[in-house]
Amino acid sequence: MNTTRVEAFSDGVIAIIITIMVLEIKVPHGETLEALLPLIPVLLSYVLSFVYVGIYWNNHHHLMHTVSIVNGRVLWANLHLLFWLSLVPFTTGWMGENHFTTLPVAIYGVTLLMAGVAYTILIRAALAVPGQNHKLAQAIGNDAKGNISVVSYLTAIPLAFVSSWLSIAIYVAVAMLWFVPDRRIEKVLD
Amino acid sequence: MNTTRVEAFSDGVIAIIITIMVLEIKVPHGETLEALLPLIPVLLSYVLSFVYVGIYWNNHHHLMHTVSIVNGRVLWANLHLLFWLSLVPFTTGWMGENHFTTLPVAIYGVTLLMAGVAYTILIRAALAVPGQNHKLAQAIGNDAKGNISVVSYLTAIPLAFVSSWLSIAIYVAVAMLWFVPDRRIEKVLD
Amino acid sequence: MNTTRVEAFSDGVIAIIITIMVLEIKVPHGETLEALLPLIPVLLSYVLSFVYVGIYWNNHHHLMHTVSIVNGRVLWANLHLLFWLSLVPFTTGWMGENHFTTLPVAIYGVTLLMAGVAYTILIRAALAVPGQNHKLAQAIGNDAKGNISVVSYLTAIPLAFVSSWLSIAIYVAVAMLWFVPDRRIEKVLD
Amino acid sequence: MNTTRVEAFSDGVIAIIITIMVLEIKVPHGETLEALLPLIPVLLSYVLSFVYVGIYWNNHHHLMHTVSIVNGRVLWANLHLLFWLSLVPFTTGWMGENHFTTLPVAIYGVTLLMAGVAYTILIRAALAVPGQNHKLAQAIGNDAKGNISVVSYLTAIPLAFVSSWLSIAIYVAVAMLWFVPDRRIEKVLD
Repeated sequence: MNTTRVEAFSDGVIAIIITIMVLEIKVPHGETLEALLPLIPVLLSYVLSFVYVGIYWNNHHHLMHTVSIVNGRVLWANLHLLFWLSLVPFTTGWMGENHFTTLPVAIYGVTLLMAGVAYTILIRAALAVPGQNHKLAQAIGNDAKGNISVVSYLTAIPLAFVSSWLSIAIYVAVAMLWFVPDRRIEKVLD
Repeated sequence: MNTTRVEAFSDGVIAIIITIMVLEIKVPHGETLEALLPLIPVLLSYVLSFVYVGIYWNNHHHLMHTVSIVNGRVLWANLHLLFWLSLVPFTTGWMGENHFTTLPVAIYGVTLLMAGVAYTILIRAALAVPGQNHKLAQAIGNDAKGNISVVSYLTAIPLAFVSSWLSIAIYVAVAMLWFVPDRRIEKVLD
Repeated sequence: MNTTRVEAFSDGVIAIIITIMVLEIKVPHGETLEALLPLIPVLLSYVLSFVYVGIYWNNHHHLMHTVSIVNGRVLWANLHLLFWLSLVPFTTGWMGENHFTTLPVAIYGVTLLMAGVAYTILIRAALAVPGQNHKLAQAIGNDAKGNISVVSYLTAIPLAFVSSWLSIAIYVAVAMLWFVPDRRIEKVLD
Repeated sequence: MNTTRVEAFSDGVIAIIITIMVLEIKVPHGETLEALLPLIPVLLSYVLSFVYVGIYWNNHHHLMHTVSIVNGRVLWANLHLLFWLSLVPFTTGWMGENHFTTLPVAIYGVTLLMAGVAYTILIRAALAVPGQNHKLAQAIGNDAKGNISVVSYLTAIPLAFVSSWLSIAIYVAVAMLWFVPDRRIEKVLD
C-alpha cells in the first residue's frame, strides 16, 4: 500500500481544520471598531492555531516524503493524529472567546500535547512497517524536537494555573522551534 | 473509467464529514470546568463517530485498491454510501446533546445500518461491472463481517427502547470488529 | 493546460457543497419524535439537492473525461458553474425550513436554472478551445437533455406561484432524467 | 520537493474558503420576499469575494505551473497567503451584513491588501529557490498588475472613510483587471 491516498486524505482533513477555525470568528453585529475589538483575542488564538496546524501539515508533508510503505497500523496512527488536530478549532475558539484565561489555555495545551504524542506514535508506526524506507529512521534520528515539544506542553499545562500567559509564551516558543521545517528530513532527502 | 476521481471525491466528502462533526461541539460561554462538563457526552459521541467514519475511509481505501473499473452504477452506489455517512454528523450531534437517550441512539443506529447496507450495495455494484478485477470477489469472500454488522445494528436499534446503553455497547463492539482493517483484502493484495 | 487541477478543484468544491448542506439540518433540542418531525421537509429538500449535486458531479466527471485542453475561459466558466452550485445549500435550507412554500421553491428553481445554464456555457467554452478533443463535440451532440432541463426549470419557476408541489414534481422529474449518467459520452468513450 | 502536494493542499484550502463563505448567508426565517431582501448586500459581497478567491485560485494555478521546485520558505509563504485568504469569509460576511458601511469596507480592503502582499512574497520566495525554473522569472516580469493592485488597495482603504462606495468601485476595478488570467505566464507556457 503506498502513501498517495493517505497524503490526499490527510491534506483534506488538515485543509478543512485550518479553514473551519475561521468560522469560530463570528461576524459581529455592529459596524463599529467597538464591535470588532472583542474579536482580537479570538483572532490571536486563530493565528496561533493556524501556525500550529500549518506546522503539522509541513512536517506531515516531509514525513510522508520519506515513508515508502504504509499498513493498517499507520493508517490508524494517522487518523489518531487527525483526531487530536480536529479538536484544535474547538479549543482555539474556547481559548479566544475567554481571552486566554486559565482553564481554556490549559485545555488548549492538552490538545497540543495529544497531537504531539500522536505524531510520535505515527512516526514509530511508520518505522515499524517491515521493509520501510531506511531514510526514515535516519531522518528522524533521536527526535529531539518532538521530545522537547512534549516536555514543554507538559510544563505549560500546569503552569496555566499559575499564569496562563506563561503557558501561551511556551506554546509560541514551541511553534517557533518548529517553524523551520524539519531539516533532519530535508538533509537526508537532498 | 478508472477509480482515481471516485477515490478523490470520496476522500474529499469523508474528510469533510469527519471534520465538520467537530462543529457540533459548540464552544461554551463560560471558562469554567462546569461549562465544559456538559460537553463530555457530545465529545464521546464525536469519538465514536470519528472511529466509524475512519473505519469507512479505511475500508473504502482497501476496497478501491482491488477495484479496477467503475461505471455509472458504481458512482451512484458510492454517492448513496456518502449520503448516509453525511447524516452521521447530524445524528452524532443529536445523540451527544441528548446524553445518549433512547430515540437519538436508535436513529444513530439507523444511519449506521443504512451506511452498512449502502456499503454492501457498493461492493455488489463493483462486483457486477463486466471485466472487474477478479481479486475483488476473492477479497470480499462471503462478507461475514458486513453481515454481522448489519445484524448487530438491526438488533441494537429496537434494543435502544429497552436500554440505550446496550445499543451503544453494540455500536462499540461493531467498531472494534472493524477496527482492524479488512485482512481479507490485505491478504489478497500481498 | 491540462484538466487535472480543474477536476481536483471542482471535486473539492462539489464535495464541500454536498457535505455542508447537512449543516442546515440543525440538531433539535428535544430528544423526542416531536422534536424530529419538523426536520422531515428539511431532510427531503436535502435529499433532492444531494441528488442534484451528485448529478452535477457525475456529469462533470464524464465531461472532463472527454475534455483534453482547458484555457482561462474554461476555468472561469467552471467557476461560474461552481458559484451557482454553491448557492444550493442556501436555497435548499430556505426551501426545507419553509416546508416547500411558493417563493423558496421558485428561488430554488432559479439556482437550478442558473446552474443548468452555467453547465451549458461550460460545455460551449470547452468546445471552443482550439485543438479540443473531437470526442467532446461528438459526445455532447445536440444536448437534448440539457435543453429539456432548462425549459423544465423555466416552466417550474412561475408554476410555483400556482402550486409549489407541481414545481417540486418537475425538479424531481428532471433529476430522474439525469440520474442515468450521460450515455452519449459513455458511448463515445467505450 | 515538487509542487504536487502544495497545489493539492492549496486547492483544498481555497475550495473550502470559497464554499464556506456561503454559510455566512444565513437562511432567513420568513418565506416572503421581505425576508429575502436584506440578504441582497450579503449576496453581493459574496459575489465579489467569490470572484476574488476565484482569481487567486486561477493565478495560483498558473503560478504553480511555472514553478518546478519548492522549499520550506515557499511552503510558509504559501501558508501565509492562505491565512489572509482564510479571513475573507469573515470580512465578507461583516461587510455584507453591515451594507457596505465604512469600517467593514476598509477592513475588507485590508484583507485584500494583505493577500496581495502575501502573493508577491510567494512569487519572490519561489523565484529565490536555487535551480528554479527560469520560465518563472520570465513569466512574472515586473509584476505590473500585482503592483497596481497593492497601490489600489492602499488608496481604497483610507478612501472608505470618505465614501465606502468609492472603495468598492476600486475593489471591483482591480477584480476586473485580474479577471483575465495572467497572460504573461500563459504566453511563456505556450
